This record gives sequence, C-alpha cells and structure tokens, in this order.
Amino acid sequence: MVAASSRCEIEDYKSWMFGLNASRPQLLHMMIRIRDVKAALRFYVDGLGMRLLGRFEVEARRVTAIFVGFEVGSTAVELAHYWDKKEPYSHGSSYSHLAVGVPELDVALARLVDVGAEVTIRPTILVAGMPRVAFVKDPDGYMVQLIQTRNG
Amino acid sequence: MVAASSRCEIEDYKSWMFGLNASRPQLLHMMIRIRDVKAALRFYVDGLGMRLLGRFEVEARRVTAIFVGFEVGSTAVELAHYWDKKEPYSHGSSYSHLAVGVPELDVALARLVDVGAEVTIRPTILVAGMPRVAFVKDPDGYMVQLIQTRNG
Repeated sequence: MVAASSRCEIEDYKSWMFGLNASRPQLLHMMIRIRDVKAALRFYVDGLGMRLLGRFEVEARRVTAIFVGFEVGSTAVELAHYWDKKEPYSHGSSYSHLAVGVPELDVALARLVDVGAEVTIRPTILVAGMPRVAFVKDPDGYMVQLIQTRNG
Repeated sequence: MVAASSRCEIEDYKSWMFGLNASRPQLLHMMIRIRDVKAALRFYVDGLGMRLLGRFEVEARRVTAIFVGFEVGSTAVELAHYWDKKEPYSHGSSYSHLAVGVPELDVALARLVDVGAEVTIRPTILVAGMPRVAFVKDPDGYMVQLIQTRNG
C-alpha cells in the first residue's frame, strides 16, 4: 500500500471509476501504458472525441493515471504514464485493438488525421454484411478500429 | 472484403455489437487473441460472470470471434480464436489489463479460482483511500483486475 499521494481532478471520480456500490459486475476500464501524455490526449480527446474523466498523479509509484471515455459511467480507457519510462513499450501479438462506434466514419477519421493519427486501413467493408470500418494507430502504436454505426 | 460466411448465434447482434444507428461515439469492444475457446469461456463466462453475447465463425479468415460482456449494450470483450494458431501469443509491455468492478471481491475471486484462474495479486489495498483490488490471469495470460465496488 502506497501513501495517499494521489490527486484527482474530478471530485466524484469514485462514482464512475470504481463503480461505487454497484450491485452487479461491470467492465470499468482497460489500461494501456503510454509515453507521452500530451500526444495521447491529442489522440483520444481531440481526435477521437473522448472526455478527460480523471487524472491522478501517484507520486509513490511515479505514475500518472489518466482516465478517458465517451461517457461517465461507461467503460473508460486508463492511460498510464510511468514517469521514468524512456524507451517505447513493446507490442506483443496478443492484444489487438479497441473498437469505437462512430455515427460518421469519414468525419471521425478526418478528425483523427487532423491531429496526426496514422491511418493503417482506409474505410472499407472487411466482411460482407458488416458495417464500414477503418483502423488508426494511436501515438504509442495501439490500434483503434472505427466502426460506422449509422446506416443511412 | 471476404465472403459472407460469418454466422452469429444472436440475431439482433447488430443492435449492440455495432452500435447500430447510434448518434454518439461509444466504446464497443476491445479485442484480444486467444488460443483455447473453451478455456477462455470458462474464465470469462463461468468465472467472471460475463454473458456470451455472440459468436461468429468467419471461415474466409479462419477465425472465430466471440463477444462476451456483462450487459447487452455495454462495452464487450471480443475473443478472437485463429484456427491455425498453435504457439502462444506474446505479451508485450504495452497493454496492461482489464478492470472489472465486482460487488463482492472475495466471492468473485473464489469463483475464478474454482474455474482454475491463477491469482497473481491477492486482495489488497494498493493505494490508500482506494478500494480493495485483486489480480488474476486468464488462460492466455491476460491480466484482469477485480475492484471491490461495494463499501459496506
């Protein structure tokens, strides 16, 4: 147990981040390690349109934990920035990607390109009968799939 | 674009899996690659208590895509089983874990242990003022954090 040195910018963070007093299990967040906070927020907030839900500086662990997501109460992404990490993280072959549903695929993709995101698969239909999708890479190399959610 | 050889056991899968006609962006799912479908379902469904939401066999890609989650409409986990993959997938240093909020940490952990899950961190408070947590490993080596969501 480390010292209580953490700080959070959202006062009621426990109501969503830890599913306070929820009576049923829920997927709270998934954590990925990042090297550049500004670059990551440019991608996830400015580019993808997520909200900055909370930010902790845990001095005892020398890590900043940032929570981003589309809505308070829905599953979030935890971006963990270890202060002393200099080299890039390695991506194994196991974890694949996050899939984000967007009403307008081309609009969402353009916004990501505007903030410098790398497009790895241009909008296409990969499987017949399924929606249009595209893939982009975040600044740390994590893949994000965009899925068109509006038909007409 | 591959042939329309996919099959899904849930008829209205599009309503949740692709966020059909949703007007706002949302986190639909995160995908991980697995080697043993039975072992993965034992962990995520029997152990963690998720529901089997949908299952596709995409013959043209020689992959089975299984969606599990706590509720229809909330963020799901896609378990992708590539039929020809024999060796274990490698875990890099980048992706960290899924965090699942559970009302009763000890009950949830016992259920996972019952299905053979490996406990890597026993229930503890890692950061003062934060809830009790524990970590388990799924059959493919992915880490899952359990977070106690009920206080009293």
